[in-house]
Amino acid sequence: MSNLHPDRYFGCKEGAVALARELYRKMSAFPIISPHGHVNPALLAENKPFPNPVALLITPDHYITRMLASVGVTYEQLDIPTKGERSQKAIAPEEIWQLLAENWIAFAGTPSRIWFEEILSEIFSITLPFNKTTAAQIYAEISHTIASDGFLPQQLFERFRIEVLATTDGTSDSLEHHRALQSTSLKARVIPTFRPDDVSDPERSDWQSSLRNLEASSAIAIDSFVTFRAALRRARDRFIEAGAKATDHGTPSALTIELTENEKEALFVELRNGNVTQANAQAFRAVMLMEHAQMSADDGLVMQLHPGSSRNHSRAIFDKYGPDRGFDIPTRTEFTSALKPLLNRFGFAEKFRLALFTLDEATYSRELAPIAGAYPSVKLGPPWWFHDSLNGMRRWRDATLESAGYLNTLGFIDDTRAFLSIPARHDVARRFDAGYLADLVHSHRVSEEDASVIADQIAYHLSKEFFRL
Amino acid sequence: MSNLHPDRYFGCKEGAVALARELYRKMSAFPIISPHGHVNPALLAENKPFPNPVALLITPDHYITRMLASVGVTYEQLDIPTKGERSQKAIAPEEIWQLLAENWIAFAGTPSRIWFEEILSEIFSITLPFNKTTAAQIYAEISHTIASDGFLPQQLFERFRIEVLATTDGTSDSLEHHRALQSTSLKARVIPTFRPDDVSDPERSDWQSSLRNLEASSAIAIDSFVTFRAALRRARDRFIEAGAKATDHGTPSALTIELTENEKEALFVELRNGNVTQANAQAFRAVMLMEHAQMSADDGLVMQLHPGSSRNHSRAIFDKYGPDRGFDIPTRTEFTSALKPLLNRFGFAEKFRLALFTLDEATYSRELAPIAGAYPSVKLGPPWWFHDSLNGMRRWRDATLESAGYLNTLGFIDDTRAFLSIPARHDVARRFDAGYLADLVHSHRVSEEDASVIADQIAYHLSKEFFRL
Amino acid sequence: MSNLHPDRYFGCKEGAVALARELYRKMSAFPIISPHGHVNPALLAENKPFPNPVALLITPDHYITRMLASVGVTYEQLDIPTKGERSQKAIAPEEIWQLLAENWIAFAGTPSRIWFEEILSEIFSITLPFNKTTAAQIYAEISHTIASDGFLPQQLFERFRIEVLATTDGTSDSLEHHRALQSTSLKARVIPTFRPDDVSDPERSDWQSSLRNLEASSAIAIDSFVTFRAALRRARDRFIEAGAKATDHGTPSALTIELTENEKEALFVELRNGNVTQANAQAFRAVMLMEHAQMSADDGLVMQLHPGSSRNHSRAIFDKYGPDRGFDIPTRTEFTSALKPLLNRFGFAEKFRLALFTLDEATYSRELAPIAGAYPSVKLGPPWWFHDSLNGMRRWRDATLESAGYLNTLGFIDDTRAFLSIPARHDVARRFDAGYLADLVHSHRVSEEDASVIADQIAYHLSKEFFRL
Repeated sequence: MSNLHPDRYFGCKEGAVALARELYRKMSAFPIISPHGHVNPALLAENKPFPNPVALLITPDHYITRMLASVGVTYEQLDIPTKGERSQKAIAPEEIWQLLAENWIAFAGTPSRIWFEEILSEIFSITLPFNKTTAAQIYAEISHTIASDGFLPQQLFERFRIEVLATTDGTSDSLEHHRALQSTSLKARVIPTFRPDDVSDPERSDWQSSLRNLEASSAIAIDSFVTFRAALRRARDRFIEAGAKATDHGTPSALTIELTENEKEALFVELRNGNVTQANAQAFRAVMLMEHAQMSADDGLVMQLHPGSSRNHSRAIFDKYGPDRGFDIPTRTEFTSALKPLLNRFGFAEKFRLALFTLDEATYSRELAPIAGAYPSVKLGPPWWFHDSLNGMRRWRDATLESAGYLNTLGFIDDTRAFLSIPARHDVARRFDAGYLADLVHSHRVSEEDASVIADQIAYHLSKEFFRL
Repeated sequence: MSNLHPDRYFGCKEGAVALARELYRKMSAFPIISPHGHVNPALLAENKPFPNPVALLITPDHYITRMLASVGVTYEQLDIPTKGERSQKAIAPEEIWQLLAENWIAFAGTPSRIWFEEILSEIFSITLPFNKTTAAQIYAEISHTIASDGFLPQQLFERFRIEVLATTDGTSDSLEHHRALQSTSLKARVIPTFRPDDVSDPERSDWQSSLRNLEASSAIAIDSFVTFRAALRRARDRFIEAGAKATDHGTPSALTIELTENEKEALFVELRNGNVTQANAQAFRAVMLMEHAQMSADDGLVMQLHPGSSRNHSRAIFDKYGPDRGFDIPTRTEFTSALKPLLNRFGFAEKFRLALFTLDEATYSRELAPIAGAYPSVKLGPPWWFHDSLNGMRRWRDATLESAGYLNTLGFIDDTRAFLSIPARHDVARRFDAGYLADLVHSHRVSEEDASVIADQIAYHLSKEFFRL
Repeated sequence: MSNLHPDRYFGCKEGAVALARELYRKMSAFPIISPHGHVNPALLAENKPFPNPVALLITPDHYITRMLASVGVTYEQLDIPTKGERSQKAIAPEEIWQLLAENWIAFAGTPSRIWFEEILSEIFSITLPFNKTTAAQIYAEISHTIASDGFLPQQLFERFRIEVLATTDGTSDSLEHHRALQSTSLKARVIPTFRPDDVSDPERSDWQSSLRNLEASSAIAIDSFVTFRAALRRARDRFIEAGAKATDHGTPSALTIELTENEKEALFVELRNGNVTQANAQAFRAVMLMEHAQMSADDGLVMQLHPGSSRNHSRAIFDKYGPDRGFDIPTRTEFTSALKPLLNRFGFAEKFRLALFTLDEATYSRELAPIAGAYPSVKLGPPWWFHDSLNGMRRWRDATLESAGYLNTLGFIDDTRAFLSIPARHDVARRFDAGYLADLVHSHRVSEEDASVIADQIAYHLSKEFFRL
């Protein structure tokens, strides 16, 4: 049925393929745990048929649009919606689909291409290779499928065997879709994740308005750091009631800092009054990480930290199209000194759990694996964003395995907005890990028994247990 | 005829060798495009017989001399010419040749050794292995060959099937050799590249004199930033007339900066008056990168940027032997923040093209591939200098492929002073890429059809099109 | 006899295994040169029977205890001795041994596990796999063996075929054990290494007391920088008399600096008076590296430098259990600029020798290999600490080979406190290098003859010659 090779992406030595197959078979039997992602909960709650193939697979996927941009296709040609309004140009989606096919060679070797072709083959049962000659026919087939019975989001959700899907939600999000989903017959859980970036970074243009939103959503007047913290605690409680198991923090750096209550109060007042400098904004972000670590140690929400992205690097793209359009670029990141205050306070705290992600691979063996291989509260998230790829996974395992082992890492995290790509992403990761483990056995570095236990851990248990799912 | 293995340097899995052979066969059928190198144009214009094997293959190759230095051979023993004068010691070249052979084991596994042995085998048809026993006989054979008919530089140039060779030339270079070559019967093109480092860095001891040279060569009195810029534009035009397609910028960092015209004027006056500090020199270099980007956006010369070398690290070597003697050491380099001003202004500019090189491999996956995989004006140059090696190419492809793909990279660039090594360097790179592509096909990550298209792109089209050759 | 696979850890291609075997056979015939380690010389001098398996293999091995900590086993449970006193809890060692077995899966893929299982198999002839079911029986077998004849430290020392073992010893160490060992019948040498960190870093709490100890041990009153230096020279002489061949420097950074004698004097007085700031402490450490380089250029002790560890990252662990408990975390490190003053002064000095180690792998190809591939005084130490692992060795060779070759590196260095792991560590490294070399031959990058010469160099000669052993 599938036109893809059954042993694809194992990447292991010839002599290890048989074992890789066996490990993969075991891993793929587990349902998917997706503890960190960006699927819009409205998609599932509203459960409406998908629109056309372009709106489904191209427009919202900034991995695809940025690569097209890089080879000279403009966002106008792709009919990317501009900030605040839907595009008016009404380019026929068939035209955009064809444009992707014409430029498909640019994606050779990239994970976007792998996921896309996995979706065509495994979800839409397309057997033709995708290229400029076949694009129109494939478009028609997909259009037909998404209009058919059995292809509504909730049906796919069950078919994908997703046991838990965590979304990412703003500080003051109403969580209405999560509540709505709880009263459906859907067996799988869709849970929110608390992401307080908007109220944690005074350099954001929406910081003051986000604080006002938090006042409203928490029903606490924020007139001091103490009341700010109280409002945050109430917001976290609100998320916990809706099923949340974790928080999510995207910061320019991993800096954490110890300040006295008086210093925090003075800093907050100064910033609230509009006196924002690079220095006091940085200090505030560092304080907020400490605060959320304290709250996590109290309420048990797992803290996820992924610093080091220079957001909206292209001002032109941001001004016209808004954030998350493929123009965030990684930066050098430091963890050892930056996290020292936080780990000194909470590194051994009983309920505290910290998942670390990075875009700076130089930190894998130098900082992250040694930290995770010592502090009981810390686990390493899998390769993030640009590094969620076959080579990226190999570099990550290669650099972290020997200092952190397998048990100080988490299972695969898809981190995706693209609902349809979830099974493909987990499948590719499972295939990689099966092949990598098989190679370790083949080279006499791990026993076959242990590889079998580890395969189950990676595929299911590590994330389920760490995120208390 | 060759004593080298026909499948050398593919480095791929056993099962991929047949395809690697086929891809390599296709790639090697293309002529060489060499858009960035350091061959002295006088060599070709004057077309004189080569001197002895040492002067041809050892003395000018700082990759070889620095490795000999590292194992205790002094530059005196190698008769390296001291600054400003030819060495007087008149060591017999046979002795130096023998010294290399005695220390040949130090080169095991290095690209220098590969290139050297490729030259012996493929250009001089030497079938003996090079070692201390055979060195004298090989010396004699090479001496005989370089004195023979058919071994003049221009003849080799045709025999090497070089379609275009770009040299690197100073701001005020007369370009006489390039003009002379245009009036020969040579079919291949030898074109200059504009490298304005001498007038862009106030910390160079020759900055003021270089400005005076630019005044003379451009016939524009430089008494302000405006006139300096005018002189630069005239210099660029002069290069364009002589066939130039690109500029080349070697800077300590990639820093770029937006200043107003008044600020630039004040900065220039201050520096011109001799008030040079680390801070204002850095600002000036950052300004000059922005200026040249603007000029490239206007005149279409491709901008090549390779920051991050600490030049002349050993003062003793520099004082006695001058620059480019193997004692330049790479430094940590940053691109994401440094290039933000430049990319915000020119990242989408129609005629602007930027080729990025680095000596800091940590930036491959973290910064360079994400930048090249988003901005249409940017392509990644292949592994540079110390990283132009089989392992270096593998690390580069491994780290850049998945975020930048193949089409956001350039074909191989030899970057060499060593004329005879040009075919060897391109051949090694083509072999590597054939093997790497074959492995991607073998592991079901790239289709055989796409690999074939990409092979042609790497071997020929990518560089030819990007450099408008 | 061994239950381990004879071809383990070669990691090479199938077609290269036969050659790897042959190279490994040659390498393993050489005795062990261990020029840098942390075995307590009292262990050998006193030559008492080993205590129980836990005190032998778990408690002192911070690689093992930190990994257990990372998965939630507390140091209380492991009965780690607290600072200044032996633990009072008297947990039965059998219980701790079982605890390791229960958590053994956490070590899958780590070098600790490889070394541990090598020790069980090759030293204790255990044929059972280590797991929670077999742990008690294995404990009993080891207990029996260590109580048996022929298992005293000196006997093992001979059996391990260690030709030279260098320990690491504080500035004012009495060296009594080294002297005692010289008068035994032991054929192998145990030599001290001079490590003056305690008197080189004014930020250490024991700096002033260490200076007083140096006054006492050198019988020179330290009332100025000049007398401090004289005391250091006398201390070095004392070590040289006891057989020392090297010094060892662990610093936060590699920074070196040129100061005048007057500046040094002023700096020393200021610090001695207790005016310690981050800035003047850093300057002093940078000065001391220069001073020791000067002394090395004079007395010929090889200088070993390994910067970049953030010591005692967890204050809680340090306060309760003291240093070296597995909570040192690597930091970003810079060499090119930092070492420039030192290399400009001593890079070509006749007797000066510098071995560089790092925890920041990003510096391998970027800084260290280019430096070692140019300066005759510098060689690269093998992968250090967290990077002493199969993947770490592969990354190190991969990143340094092409710029530094093999001859600018040193043979394997075990750097261990764990006496019993010395043969295992050298054996794993030899196996890795045999496989890596075999792959280079197999891919036509190194000739078989050269691989054979290099194998001998790595296994024995490189370290023996560099350390003048």
